[in-house]
Amino acid sequence: MNFKTYAESTGKRAIELAKKAERASKETGVNIIVAPQFTDLCRVAEAVELPVFAQHIDPIAPGAFTGQVQADAVKEAGVVGTLINHSERQLKLADIDAVVRLAGEKDLISCVCTNNPSVSAAVAYLQPDIISIEPPELIGTGVAVSKAQPEAVTNTIQLVRKVNDHAVILCGAGLSRGEDVSVALKLGTQGVLVASGIVKAKDPYTVLREFADSTKL
Amino acid sequence: MNFKTYAESTGKRAIELAKKAERASKETGVNIIVAPQFTDLCRVAEAVELPVFAQHIDPIAPGAFTGQVQADAVKEAGVVGTLINHSERQLKLADIDAVVRLAGEKDLISCVCTNNPSVSAAVAYLQPDIISIEPPELIGTGVAVSKAQPEAVTNTIQLVRKVNDHAVILCGAGLSRGEDVSVALKLGTQGVLVASGIVKAKDPYTVLREFADSTKL
Amino acid sequence: MNFKTYAESTGKRAIELAKKAERASKETGVNIIVAPQFTDLCRVAEAVELPVFAQHIDPIAPGAFTGQVQADAVKEAGVVGTLINHSERQLKLADIDAVVRLAGEKDLISCVCTNNPSVSAAVAYLQPDIISIEPPELIGTGVAVSKAQPEAVTNTIQLVRKVNDHAVILCGAGLSRGEDVSVALKLGTQGVLVASGIVKAKDPYTVLREFADSTKL
Amino acid sequence: MNFKTYAESTGKRAIELAKKAERASKETGVNIIVAPQFTDLCRVAEAVELPVFAQHIDPIAPGAFTGQVQADAVKEAGVVGTLINHSERQLKLADIDAVVRLAGEKDLISCVCTNNPSVSAAVAYLQPDIISIEPPELIGTGVAVSKAQPEAVTNTIQLVRKVNDHAVILCGAGLSRGEDVSVALKLGTQGVLVASGIVKAKDPYTVLREFADSTKL
Repeated sequence: MNFKTYAESTGKRAIELAKKAERASKETGVNIIVAPQFTDLCRVAEAVELPVFAQHIDPIAPGAFTGQVQADAVKEAGVVGTLINHSERQLKLADIDAVVRLAGEKDLISCVCTNNPSVSAAVAYLQPDIISIEPPELIGTGVAVSKAQPEAVTNTIQLVRKVNDHAVILCGAGLSRGEDVSVALKLGTQGVLVASGIVKAKDPYTVLREFADSTKL
Repeated sequence: MNFKTYAESTGKRAIELAKKAERASKETGVNIIVAPQFTDLCRVAEAVELPVFAQHIDPIAPGAFTGQVQADAVKEAGVVGTLINHSERQLKLADIDAVVRLAGEKDLISCVCTNNPSVSAAVAYLQPDIISIEPPELIGTGVAVSKAQPEAVTNTIQLVRKVNDHAVILCGAGLSRGEDVSVALKLGTQGVLVASGIVKAKDPYTVLREFADSTKL
Repeated sequence: MNFKTYAESTGKRAIELAKKAERASKETGVNIIVAPQFTDLCRVAEAVELPVFAQHIDPIAPGAFTGQVQADAVKEAGVVGTLINHSERQLKLADIDAVVRLAGEKDLISCVCTNNPSVSAAVAYLQPDIISIEPPELIGTGVAVSKAQPEAVTNTIQLVRKVNDHAVILCGAGLSRGEDVSVALKLGTQGVLVASGIVKAKDPYTVLREFADSTKL
Repeated sequence: MNFKTYAESTGKRAIELAKKAERASKETGVNIIVAPQFTDLCRVAEAVELPVFAQHIDPIAPGAFTGQVQADAVKEAGVVGTLINHSERQLKLADIDAVVRLAGEKDLISCVCTNNPSVSAAVAYLQPDIISIEPPELIGTGVAVSKAQPEAVTNTIQLVRKVNDHAVILCGAGLSRGEDVSVALKLGTQGVLVASGIVKAKDPYTVLREFADSTKL
């Protein structure tokens, strides 16, 4: 679950949201990863037992880089992985490669976001741990990728598996109902990446439960 | 004091460094502001009574922005101000304007970094609280701006004061000895912006004391 | 007149459009500057006697920069000036400063685009030859800045003139009728920056004439 | 041959350099592609019978984009292909994908530059016509990739061929002598990408001949 920079997932509300995710995870046994903002990482990591991801890290070693985000810093905050190249924080290709390597060296789980099947296949060659396809035109719309573009998901899986048999494949964008999740899994993904569908929901816990329960259908 | 992303100023070491700054500040009565990495902001703000700045914020309202840094998030972490447009994190002109306004709305102190006198004068019109001139070619060199380019500092003060009589004016780049600081103040600045001179020093506390004491000469 | 990258102002059609502007200029005695795409600069400069501007140049000296645009190259193509920091091609503040200086050294007329009065005043300090205010929310809308935001124009003039008495001040965004131009001049500007209002018009020559005639009302 | 933005390959000197390349090409029968600056494309394309490439194009359709480079504009200038993602003009991954597709739609030959074997393999999935590996640390050094990092070249070929059997594979960076070229071909590349080795040479024609002759050894 990507917290983005919504008001509903900032500061104290980030911790509350993470606790709801923890409760839904414990009740259902479904793995939920939370990705809060940089400033909330340490507090969320302390508050819950869920795996915590950063939303982005920069392709840098420790040094003279003001206002950037280095791998060691997020690790010290309790982070175990990172999103890379989210459509709202895209990177140059060489930097995606560098950050995936950096994550590997630092024992951080790398989750590279992609926008279509061929880009997903390209990324598969960089050996990230997770690939998440999110057609940008569907993000935040409530129109689920799994229903609106099922072939984008299945083509991604097919192309990625030709060159990479171990990366976890997720999909995201527009997921707002439990059914969207169960369809995504039936298409062959191993999970989903969600944001506004939960963060902006009136009752995030209920949606989290619905999503988690739907993984078992 | 800008912590940048040095190994010496990350995580636990960020807190230790901030405590040394707090000690030097309390012993000398000199104001010291610390600017740790995003991930360390809340822990440093809890650990010391010094004012804490962010190293950067993005020109965004809360919303669907992954991997970015919003004003409300740094405020909730205990931050009271922010660096803007550091030479290692430069912004487009319209974004500097937007972030200075945003900081004003959020009661965050805005400190815009500039690279020369005419850019400083340009920034003065955007009404930030603090303007800090740092010739980028001297950053991290140990060659102090106050000694190598005193006219850059005095020209900045002269040009800025023509259009803005309230902004605090700092200078930075290459400051490594107490004398560099006292010269900077004699040139007319109201403080200094330092990073590697302290963070990378063998004994940061001693340098901090030397810098703080030099403000009184 | 900014040709942007419209189909109507590319290649041969750029030359035809420039010739219409030349005719309108000769018939009315009104100065018209044309700013075609990089690839069309030399052919347009050969085809017409109007002053030709580039739409952008990079803050670089000749050297190892692939895919960038250097001052000497546009000069050799017959260009006499350049737009800088158009809202569709924004620059970091230090780069605006560098490009304005570079243009000065190369005897190129510098026209810096700005988005609001305070940014215009900031730019005035960098001493460009021309400042053009274009509220980005009006660009391409057909809603003229001179009518929708007259105070943005008059405030720009007032603030700029406090620190700079020689820069030519233009305004742009949404200008589509002759009246928009005459109002702009009555507000105190010395000309206008237009694009889609002419380029996308059914009959660009007629609109050009209408605009040129309106400068005399 | 990438002209970059060197003084030696700007304006009239771009045409002279292209004519030297044309002479070397005709005398030896070796294919030479020239990639001048945007502003020189039409004049070079008129002056010589060699294939002319752009150094970069933007991922845009015709429209309201100031200071950018669109596919139709370079085509009208006589261009038949384009470099993409040169290490001095890197693109986001999704933009590389978009530009390769755009080039395909416009019948432009796409040549994507890469920095290492795994990035090359990633790019192979995007189906460009040409892939050129150039380790950035060797560019402009005179230390030839084919001699300093032969395994980067052979690993690239091996990885690319697993997923793409038709893309032409080039290598570049540091090539300054004919021997560098013949070694590159022996490693399995189908050509080389060169810039300063020729552009900055005292006698570019002689080096061009030496390079062209070396392809036959």
